[in-house]
Amino acid sequence: MPIAGLNLVPFVSVENMMDLVLETGIDAFLVELAQYIEEDFRRWEHFDKTPRVASHSAEGVIELMPTSDGRLYGFKYVNGHPKNTRSGRQTVTAFGVLADVETGYPLLLSEMTILTALRTAAMSAVAARYLAPKNARTMALIGTGAQSEFQARAFRALLGIESLRLFDVDHGAMARCRGNLADLGLSIALCASPEEAVEGAEIITTATADKQNATILTDNMIGAGVHINAVGGDCPGKTELHRDILLRSSIFVEYPPQTRVEGEIQQLDPDHPVVELWRVICGKEAGRDRADQITLFDSVGFAVEDFSALRYVNEKLKESRHYTALDLLADPDEPRDLYGMLLRRQAWLRQACLA
Amino acid sequence: MPIAGLNLVPFVSVENMMDLVLETGIDAFLVELAQYIEEDFRRWEHFDKTPRVASHSAEGVIELMPTSDGRLYGFKYVNGHPKNTRSGRQTVTAFGVLADVETGYPLLLSEMTILTALRTAAMSAVAARYLAPKNARTMALIGTGAQSEFQARAFRALLGIESLRLFDVDHGAMARCRGNLADLGLSIALCASPEEAVEGAEIITTATADKQNATILTDNMIGAGVHINAVGGDCPGKTELHRDILLRSSIFVEYPPQTRVEGEIQQLDPDHPVVELWRVICGKEAGRDRADQITLFDSVGFAVEDFSALRYVNEKLKESRHYTALDLLADPDEPRDLYGMLLRRQAWLRQACLA
Repeated sequence: MPIAGLNLVPFVSVENMMDLVLETGIDAFLVELAQYIEEDFRRWEHFDKTPRVASHSAEGVIELMPTSDGRLYGFKYVNGHPKNTRSGRQTVTAFGVLADVETGYPLLLSEMTILTALRTAAMSAVAARYLAPKNARTMALIGTGAQSEFQARAFRALLGIESLRLFDVDHGAMARCRGNLADLGLSIALCASPEEAVEGAEIITTATADKQNATILTDNMIGAGVHINAVGGDCPGKTELHRDILLRSSIFVEYPPQTRVEGEIQQLDPDHPVVELWRVICGKEAGRDRADQITLFDSVGFAVEDFSALRYVNEKLKESRHYTALDLLADPDEPRDLYGMLLRRQAWLRQACLA
Repeated sequence: MPIAGLNLVPFVSVENMMDLVLETGIDAFLVELAQYIEEDFRRWEHFDKTPRVASHSAEGVIELMPTSDGRLYGFKYVNGHPKNTRSGRQTVTAFGVLADVETGYPLLLSEMTILTALRTAAMSAVAARYLAPKNARTMALIGTGAQSEFQARAFRALLGIESLRLFDVDHGAMARCRGNLADLGLSIALCASPEEAVEGAEIITTATADKQNATILTDNMIGAGVHINAVGGDCPGKTELHRDILLRSSIFVEYPPQTRVEGEIQQLDPDHPVVELWRVICGKEAGRDRADQITLFDSVGFAVEDFSALRYVNEKLKESRHYTALDLLADPDEPRDLYGMLLRRQAWLRQACLA
């Protein structure tokens, strides 16, 4: 039975993605991915945007995150299940699809667990380039779970961070993070408390995973002039910062209709002023304009970032062999004859049995 | 590099799906699938329901259709691009995922172009069993595109239809439809007009594909007592029936918030009375209660039907070899150590190069 090319969709497995990232180099991958994200934030107004479509349960959430720039369409499937680690599973797994708007045909199916970790870190670094104090060299990293090393590498590669101050309630996770980041020339301190971790840090990244309102940072821990990169709070009822910090900060967000529901700012009045990050990147609004200003990137992760990541991977595949072809789309010889394809398969199977 | 089982997701390709359907038998597949759909309509209130998330463009639409019963979560990606046939592509292609709500992990990735064709036909037949005149034996089938043979087989298998009256503006498509349905014992007439096709038909199925408000059926063509199965109208600005027919009919729909926007009833006032099909199936409301009543199933396709189809395929896979395992989920030995998985892959690749 002949298989024409139209039925096949390039598929990037987890192993393919690892090999693509390693072949590119982790730092180069983060830097290039950041460029794609920044490019798409510059043309923010071209995107068809909608808050992600979430299905909540007692254990976690499953979300679909679609967007389109009119030429390409992308969506990501992602779950968030904090208890998963108990059964040896990931808290977050993801995959995504990039499609051609003109035909609706998928162009790419890709794992996105690793890709999401990279894009989240690249996004944080893009925001910090506009919001963090100039020449910041020390970052506190609170929560050393699956996202932590990616954050560290992105801030090292894109902002020149030289010193990390880690804290996690799980000391094994802290040690693992330090071990994974050895040989990069980073100075790494393991701290006994969040208070100790933020000492001397110009940038504070929080990336904890509990599905509840937590207070990882309290008001007295936050000195003038720091940049807070709040990565962990990303669904209703899940926050990391004390409300008083928010009231002292200039708050930058990806897409307000989503962040109001999911971000740290769910603790604030619905009309509390926030700045959309794309406006800062486009020069329409100020980012950091005072040395003593506290800036907060209230990151929840938006569909456009996943779109950028899929668009980047799709470009990389043009010069790479790190994918396989998946027989995902029915492609009858005559497009209106879908049923006939079944009949021809039946005839072929019968003949194969006789032969 | 060891690959544990948790990273793998069963994948049903187009070829797998064809073989699964053929092994089961097309009629048996339709009958069993109809049982799953009916079962899920009976527990309609358990489902987390939302209108599909559509991204419209000049050429067509790309949609995501998620739903969950609290234990399983399913979604379908589906496009609708009427001009696709000109470039040898399908108007509609689709794939979908079934996932475990407790962990958020996908259980199944499946092609759904063929599966959607089957579930749409099974859904139509389920509705007709409650709405069509008893002992209907003749069906008019207007629009003999990719959906037509599936409709014919489902109505033959589930309602005992013996006679088909076909019409399409494309005579080749009509001949193809008749050819594909030969050897089933159906009496098949090719008609010169829609008017001729509906003569003597107790059930009228419309399954045309243009993305525009069309008038496939006019009021004078619809006699008392018929059941209309309107399959083709399924997005804003795309309808098949004259408004006057709607005003004379008892209208049954899948999920009103979606059908009001996409179905034939987009032509009516937003508060025009309609009956939700699940209420008929559960015996909460009457279906057909008079012999001269015109019943209309204003079918647009709802996420629960795709969920039923994925649930059915997932069950079938327990006794079948028609799938492969896809390396879709990152599965590090230690779930919080996603980054370490990259490092271990790097070490393995280096060693492999040296060896």
